Formats: sequence, C-alpha cells, structure tokens
Amino acid sequence: QKTYKIASIPGDGIGKEVVPHGQIIADVAARQHGFAIEWTVFDWSCETYLETGQMMPDDGIEQLKKFDAIYLGAVGWPTVPDHVSLWGLLLPIRREMNQYANIRHIRLLDGVQSPLAGRSPEDIDFIVVRENVEGEYSELGGRMNRGTPDELAIQEAVFTRKGTDRIMKYAFELAQKRARKQVTSATKSNGIKHSMPFWDERFAAMSAQYPDISTNQFHIDILTAHFVRNPDWFDVIVASNLFGDILSDLGPAIAGSIGIAPSANINPEREFPSMFEPVHGSAPDIAGKGIANPIGAIWTIAELLEHLGENAAAAQIEAAMQQSLMHDETKTADLGGSATTQGCVDTILNAM
Amino acid sequence: QKTYKIASIPGDGIGKEVVPHGQIIADVAARQHGFAIEWTVFDWSCETYLETGQMMPDDGIEQLKKFDAIYLGAVGWPTVPDHVSLWGLLLPIRREMNQYANIRHIRLLDGVQSPLAGRSPEDIDFIVVRENVEGEYSELGGRMNRGTPDELAIQEAVFTRKGTDRIMKYAFELAQKRARKQVTSATKSNGIKHSMPFWDERFAAMSAQYPDISTNQFHIDILTAHFVRNPDWFDVIVASNLFGDILSDLGPAIAGSIGIAPSANINPEREFPSMFEPVHGSAPDIAGKGIANPIGAIWTIAELLEHLGENAAAAQIEAAMQQSLMHDETKTADLGGSATTQGCVDTILNAM
Ligand SMILES: CC(C)[C@H](C(=O)O)[C@@H](O)C(=O)O
Ligand SMILES: CC(C)[C@H](C(=O)O)[C@@H](O)C(=O)O
Repeated sequence: QKTYKIASIPGDGIGKEVVPHGQIIADVAARQHGFAIEWTVFDWSCETYLETGQMMPDDGIEQLKKFDAIYLGAVGWPTVPDHVSLWGLLLPIRREMNQYANIRHIRLLDGVQSPLAGRSPEDIDFIVVRENVEGEYSELGGRMNRGTPDELAIQEAVFTRKGTDRIMKYAFELAQKRARKQVTSATKSNGIKHSMPFWDERFAAMSAQYPDISTNQFHIDILTAHFVRNPDWFDVIVASNLFGDILSDLGPAIAGSIGIAPSANINPEREFPSMFEPVHGSAPDIAGKGIANPIGAIWTIAELLEHLGENAAAAQIEAAMQQSLMHDETKTADLGGSATTQGCVDTILNAM
Repeated sequence: QKTYKIASIPGDGIGKEVVPHGQIIADVAARQHGFAIEWTVFDWSCETYLETGQMMPDDGIEQLKKFDAIYLGAVGWPTVPDHVSLWGLLLPIRREMNQYANIRHIRLLDGVQSPLAGRSPEDIDFIVVRENVEGEYSELGGRMNRGTPDELAIQEAVFTRKGTDRIMKYAFELAQKRARKQVTSATKSNGIKHSMPFWDERFAAMSAQYPDISTNQFHIDILTAHFVRNPDWFDVIVASNLFGDILSDLGPAIAGSIGIAPSANINPEREFPSMFEPVHGSAPDIAGKGIANPIGAIWTIAELLEHLGENAAAAQIEAAMQQSLMHDETKTADLGGSATTQGCVDTILNAM
C-alpha cells in the first residue's frame, strides 16, 4: 500500500485547532481509498520563536525536503512582528522549495453567501495564478539617512524572464484543462514603467504559443473593480506576486470564502514538496474558543491529496464538506451557523 | 467680480464629449453665484500625439502654471500605447505641479445601485487619500540582458520621509474635519520588506501627533476584501501611490460609481494649480455615440469649484446632479436609465 509522507505545520492560533482535524479527515479518506499517510508534525510557530529566537531550526528547509507535501495551518501572532514570523518560515519555504505558483480557486459554493448582490455559483468560478517567489517581494532595497528628515526607503521589484515565463506557462496550461480556455493578465503598465511593460511583453509572447487560449488584460486597479462588478468575466488570471496576493484575497471575499478557501504553493516540477495552507490567518480574536471554522483546513487537505494524485479521496472530502455547508446547524458562526469546530468536523466525518 | 482662470483639457474619447457640458454647467453656477470663469481649452490628446509626436508642447507645464485649476476629461486611446499617453501628459502634470494628494470620495449616492448586497448610502461614505507623485510609480529601474533568456527587469519604488509624511498629514487633517475622525493605513509590511515597514513607522509617528484621531491599518490584500465585506468600517484611508490607485478604483466600484466619481489631484500648498478629472477613462467603445454619462465630468467640476472656495456653487451643482439620478428617464444607460448625454445634462441645467 502506498504511503505518503506529509509534514504538518499547524503554526499559530486557530492553525493549531484546525490542522489536527484536517489530518484525521485525510486519514479517514486514505483508509477508504487504499493509501496511508505518515504524518510528521512540526511545532514551528511564533511560540517557538519566543522560546528559541527562531521560527524554525537552521536546517528546517532541509528537514522538509524529504516529504511528499507540506500541510500548513496559519503563521503569525500579535507578540511577534509579522515580518519576523513570515520571513522566518512561510516565505523561505515558498522560495527555497521553488514553489513559484500560488494557486487559489475562487468558487462560490452552494450554501455560502456572496456579499455581491444576485450572484450564484455559476457566476463565480475562476482561478488566480500568482507568481510566488520574485517580483515585488524582493529583499533588494534599503534605507538612507535613517532617522533624519531626509530619510528614504527604496524597494526593488525583480522580474526575470525565467520567473515570468514559467508562471505564465503554468497559467496557460491550466486554462487548457478548463472549459472556457481563457487567461487574463493583471498588469499596470500604464503607471509602472519598467516591470509591467516587461510583464506585458512576456504575456504577449506566451499568448502566441497558445493559440487555443483566448487572452485579455486589465490594469490591476480596474481589475479589482471588475472582480466586484463582473466576476463572471474570468477563468484563469495570471498575476505578479503582489497583484496576485491582492487578487487572491479579493477573490475569496467576493465568493464569501475568505474564512474557508484553500491556497496551494506549488513546485510544478516536483523537485521539492508543495505546500498547502488555508487562506485564513491565525485569528487571535477567536483562537482557543473551539469555534474556528475547520472548512479551510479541510478544503486545503483535499487539494493536497489531489496534488498527490488521490483524486477520489479529494473528491470525497470535498463532497462531505459541501454537505456540511447546506445547513445552519452544521456551519460555524462566521458562515451564519451555530456549529462548533468539532460539530462541523463530526458532520463531515459522518458524511464520509 | 471674481474671475477664475481654468485650463480645460478634454483629452480623448468621451472626455471630449462630457467636458464641454461640465464647462457650461460651471458657467451657469458662476452666474448665479456672482463669479466668472475664463476658460482656456487645450487640445492635448492622443490625436495631437499622432499628429505632432507629443501629447503636449514642450512648455505645456509652464503654460498650465498660470491657471487657478485644471479640468481634465480623459486621456488614452487604443492607437497610442498607454505609457506614452500617460507619461506624456497626466503623470508629468501630477508630478511637476506637485499634486501629491490624489483624493477620491467614495459615496453611495441615492439612486445609484451598489453591487454589494443590502448596502445603503449610510454604509459607504469614505475617502481614499493616495500619495500621487512618488512610491511605486518611479522612473528608476530598467532592463538587463534584453531579448535573451536571462532578461530581467528591475523596478524601484522610492518612499521619502518628506513625501510620506506630507500625505499622511493631509489624511489626518482631513479626518479632523469629519465626524468619525478615523484614519486607516494601507500597508503590506508583512511581505514587502523595505518600503512598507518604513511606511508603517511614519504612520505610527504621525498618529502620535494626532491624539484626537483613531487609527488602524490593514495589509492591502485583506483591505480590498474588507472594502467588499465591511465598507462601513472606513472613514479616511491613506495609501501609497499604487495601493491608492487600486483602492480608488475598487472604492467607486463598490459604490456603483466607477462611471461617475470624480478624482482630485491636489497641490495642498497651492504653489501650483490642482487638477480635477473624472475616474472614468476615454471609453473608446461608446465614444462618439452621445450616450456617455456626463455625471463624472459634472461631479468633477463641482469638486473643482469647491476647491476654489465656491462652496455654494458646488453644492448647487451636486444637488442638481443628485436629482437627475433619481429617475430612469434622466439617467444614462450605464446606470440602468434611458437618457442620452444631452438629456441628462438638460435635466441638470433645468434643476439649476
Ligand atoms: C491612467 C493611470 C496611469 C492612472 C494611475 O494609475 O494613476 C489612473 O489609473 C488613475 O488612477 O488616475
Ligand atoms: C502573510 C503574507 C506574507 C502572505 C503573502 O503576502 O504572501 C499572505 O498574504 C498570503 O497571501 O499568503
């Protein structure tokens, strides 16, 4: 029997509450579909940082390399500055594992309310493909005249042809598998002089190689407006690190699913494990109360299993999860229901 | 009698159709409120560029300096690359006139439909204050290894203490004039390493100087989500050039007013004229058909007159404009009505 090695990093706050449920649900699906999972749980988190001064040990990345996939809960806590917790764990994993494609499915699920008037599941079903390791998230730059009235900060964004082309290729190939076969590019070449015209050139070059895919492009400002006004226009959207970051939070917001959507950090060449995490954060305000919505972690584990090729197990989890969304008694409070974390999980386990 | 000198740049597409109406309406208000306007119309546009190779003459900026304000329609046309038309006209005016504050009022007006479910005018009433001359819109950066597989583009963003502090000061002073007295900072210091932590430091320093103002901050990704989910949380939002650009299109989108909202490019010290333009673009798809919505240009001229201190004239125009929004027969098609441009303008003139 096939056994997958999965690294689990529950992280902080509600991450620690929901990830164990995701593991149990994955195990149940595994038993029913004839495979097994060997879990290794890492306590890397802000708590660890406060004790040891490090979010993860020096050889953390090396340790992770031997796994088939990484399952992450949420990282961040008010007692540790964000840039410490993120540049000490999440961002190095994305980079050093070359997880250059961040993927978010934006889908309005049955039983979930969109904040947009009159929208139903057919209207909102697209994917944001975000470049995940370069672009605006660069370590280049710095400060001058610190502490004086003449102080200034420079931030450099770096766009390579290699990095740009491979994320676009990923988007086009993803679109080829979908019915609509359309790729939209997020740009801002009318205002940002160097990086975005380059992005547009590469998008045009890549489009020419995929004559079966229809393409268009919007500047990021009006694109966010179209998410709200015309979400039905989109199929696959390809975006730089920063623009993708924005669109992949705005997308779940219009689909009413910020608290439940999954996010995948993919290394398409499978040189290294890919990492799967819910979109939601550690939620200090509700952590420890037993009321966190476990759907994010559960939807995430389904995507992880699909990535490993266990499509039937993934589909089973998604179907059970979808069932729990149909009744107020089995949904958590953030979705207008009355269930606790455990109550919602039990419904899903029963459905499986 | 007081006479204002206003430079009018109708620009391209529907800009040329709506700006003349805005001028007529301003003249009517002027007569009723005891002042006069001396208009100088400049034909600077993409058409000019195609004839002369320049969006405006070499001494264009010098010519504009002697006016009390600038009224702009829309710049951009498909036959001219965006970065040419914008860096040849709009962006140099903003910069060389030191119009460092870009202001957009986001208001859900009576008679306008928000795409958000269940929202009414009390829920959406805030202001985006965008830094307008530095930050991510910088000319620094370039390309290496052009045309080869190793090609890369670097884009630098420049944040000075002077530029950051003055826009924050503007936001805090604006908030002091409003009932709620709240300023929200748009940041991304968890992912963007140099510029955004600097932005946060300056925001903290400025907050300390305004103890009467309550403050908070959100990362730009989740902030766009909150625009959709919780627009009622906001009063004044201060943002960098790029983040402000995004928020000031997303804002009008949630308020149903992308086609009608005004935008002000302010030089707060009044060393140079400020520039007022509608949020909408040149709209090549409907240009020349007589169906463009003139409300954007009219609301814009009202803001311009207010900036000149003619508050009563501005209020009169806004009230007449508001009236035209209350009936389908006097609204244009983009707002679900049946009026032509002229029909809508006539309603407003009659109401005045
Ligand atoms: C046209 C473009 C350069 C401009 C900007 O990004 O500043 C526009 O989007 C705006 O917001 O006025
Ligand atoms: C936490 C933060 C650094 C991260 C990002 O911006 O990449 C998050 O917003 C995300 O989208 O995964």
